[in-house]
Amino acid sequence: MRIGLIGCGTVGSSLVALLRDEGDLLADRLGEPIEIARIAVRDPERPREGWIDRSLLTGSWREVVSDPAIELVVELMGDVPEAIDAIRSALAGGKSVVSANKAVLSRHLSELEELAGRAERDIFFEAAVAGGVPLIRALRVSLFGERLSRIVGIVNGTTNFILTRMQEDEVEFEEALSSARKLGYAEADPTSDLDGSDAAAKAAIMASLAFGRKVTAADVRRTGIEGVSAGDFLFAKRNGWTIKLLAVAEHFGAAPDSPLNVEVFPALVPSSHPLAGVRDSFNAVFVEGNAVGELMFFGPGAGGMPTASAVLGDVIEAAHNLRTATRARVVIQEQAHFLTADAILARFSISMEVLDEPGVLARVSEVFGGFGISIARMEQLEVEDGVARLVFLTHRTALDSLERASLELEKLDVVVRLHRSFRVFT
Amino acid sequence: MRIGLIGCGTVGSSLVALLRDEGDLLADRLGEPIEIARIAVRDPERPREGWIDRSLLTGSWREVVSDPAIELVVELMGDVPEAIDAIRSALAGGKSVVSANKAVLSRHLSELEELAGRAERDIFFEAAVAGGVPLIRALRVSLFGERLSRIVGIVNGTTNFILTRMQEDEVEFEEALSSARKLGYAEADPTSDLDGSDAAAKAAIMASLAFGRKVTAADVRRTGIEGVSAGDFLFAKRNGWTIKLLAVAEHFGAAPDSPLNVEVFPALVPSSHPLAGVRDSFNAVFVEGNAVGELMFFGPGAGGMPTASAVLGDVIEAAHNLRTATRARVVIQEQAHFLTADAILARFSISMEVLDEPGVLARVSEVFGGFGISIARMEQLEVEDGVARLVFLTHRTALDSLERASLELEKLDVVVRLHRSFRVFT
Repeated sequence: MRIGLIGCGTVGSSLVALLRDEGDLLADRLGEPIEIARIAVRDPERPREGWIDRSLLTGSWREVVSDPAIELVVELMGDVPEAIDAIRSALAGGKSVVSANKAVLSRHLSELEELAGRAERDIFFEAAVAGGVPLIRALRVSLFGERLSRIVGIVNGTTNFILTRMQEDEVEFEEALSSARKLGYAEADPTSDLDGSDAAAKAAIMASLAFGRKVTAADVRRTGIEGVSAGDFLFAKRNGWTIKLLAVAEHFGAAPDSPLNVEVFPALVPSSHPLAGVRDSFNAVFVEGNAVGELMFFGPGAGGMPTASAVLGDVIEAAHNLRTATRARVVIQEQAHFLTADAILARFSISMEVLDEPGVLARVSEVFGGFGISIARMEQLEVEDGVARLVFLTHRTALDSLERASLELEKLDVVVRLHRSFRVFT
Repeated sequence: MRIGLIGCGTVGSSLVALLRDEGDLLADRLGEPIEIARIAVRDPERPREGWIDRSLLTGSWREVVSDPAIELVVELMGDVPEAIDAIRSALAGGKSVVSANKAVLSRHLSELEELAGRAERDIFFEAAVAGGVPLIRALRVSLFGERLSRIVGIVNGTTNFILTRMQEDEVEFEEALSSARKLGYAEADPTSDLDGSDAAAKAAIMASLAFGRKVTAADVRRTGIEGVSAGDFLFAKRNGWTIKLLAVAEHFGAAPDSPLNVEVFPALVPSSHPLAGVRDSFNAVFVEGNAVGELMFFGPGAGGMPTASAVLGDVIEAAHNLRTATRARVVIQEQAHFLTADAILARFSISMEVLDEPGVLARVSEVFGGFGISIARMEQLEVEDGVARLVFLTHRTALDSLERASLELEKLDVVVRLHRSFRVFT
């Protein structure tokens, strides 16, 4: 089984190492060896790990997808414009594809499943969500007969590392981010992690598979973790919560037009909930279904070797399917409808710094009242230099009302600074 | 797709309900409806749930396996002698088989995989281990290329319920057992749960798949939870542990003759470990591999609907394979070698009631010393009526030494009663 690799960064070179170290085991179990026949990289000249056979390198992915001896293409290019072209060409050329490209898949999953169906080949992408955790196959196969209602996951290791440090070391965001950078948990430009778009891409992929609907990254409402403060953690701790960035996908009903809600947001999670115990760069995903109840999958969400392990699982299944002239079921995706912000109901915490003078609370409360937001609890955290920090905890209210109230609150002259709000996870 | 059901207890009738409720969804996703064509039960005359079509009932499983219209047999008979005959006949007759029968599979897995291979049909058994948790498929497919080193799981809901009650309500074993019975978590005869043999069967199945070796229930060294006392929990709590019945399967090395160790025992688990937080009848399984690191699967380990959900996932995959004339890879199982008790190294706690008189500690210590067992910590729990309870915590020692020392200790006239020992989980 000759495979071609496009992209040879951390995951790609780990895959090559894994195939070298476990080659005999795999050949034994599969009945034939897996051989890497060609590796396309951006720069074939730059130094590489010693175990990369330089004679396999090429600067052109087209050489890989057009090589007739290659039956299976592993695409690990990352979020570059050519990635989708490489996958399309490979499928069109009758090759099966294994990809870890959450950015591309979260935009083009439905099209690629269709292309694979027409080519009678597979497109697998276990590594695109939650790294080494075998969640995608569980959704595609094991839970295929299950009517799933909700998926809640911690699927971004960088932000979870930062939030864990803020929780445990009681430091501010900037300090936690800088230690994430130092330890290699955050990239030079961590924007797509911090603003929730990486998690949103994974949420879109999970929702597509779980509910059989077309969900792209653009359909995911998202808020990142910028602006989360040590004060927010103080408040959370005092109330028995911690703060986690959650990717949530929900399906309300079974009818073809029943709506979905797919979101990424930082939430207050009860400390006793298993998600609260998911530390550092680990990932965990809860899946709720009508018959099975609640399942959880936990494991390393990133890292070269765990991700390469997920890629390898896909490679083996795709290879088996090629040899037995079969393929995995296409996940048919119907059109999706989404909840609008006035239909998303939740409890929120919202905090702000206000002038420490009489009548302020009344004016703030008036704004909440005006949008029909009922307050369950209020806390005054500290007073310093005539400024008090207030935290409000709402009863169940519409996201829309909360957002509109926030805009009004920001305009009040007694509000010095409006901090970010958090969803309360239940 | 016409399927035959053998056995229609809790899981079977849940499966029938699930196929009724989700029939349209399944037909839509699969491209054809799944129809239950025949149901074999012990007593076709006894009253059944209203949704069971009585015209499908027969008293003979042979009628199901010999029905040429049936392509797939779901075996849910439980641990009865005929179950293996029913599965053999179904496979021999060219039908694929889905079974939840951990007892039968833990004895005959290797033979049944071979039979299925010869018949070019599938035998699937997701529901045999950890109920609704999709662990088996992860081991068979996703982690097929992974060199797994260890599996540690809580795979028996009855004993975990009892231990959770002892931990949280601080009651004795008998009281916890009786509340398990009242709430339906323990059967009328819970022997196979309490003595660890149910967990041992599951450990054998997990070890077979994870390591590709022939492991049967008889190869599993096991200790149950009888005799675990409130005093044991007191000692555990004071030291930051809880007590869990663990199924452990380990592989020491990669060579064909490298040994396995497959065991079931009650262990002291650090309260901070995720396994300590697995409550009541839930199941959780940790899987450790060379590339992926550590994964955890968590969910409902029993119950009609979750188990039926796992069966349904298998039915769907087997049906897909029948339609596309393919089948899952057979898991080849080589001969296994097992560690002997002198090579199983662990830390243990061992407790006993002794006469509260001078020189007793010296005599007990002498026994430990005689077997080369070094003590890390000793605690005296209470003294009552001239009897003191001692708990010893050993350094790493051989299981064999501990067992032989226990026999000696029991013979000492100053030892009133030797309690059970616990493994310390690390």
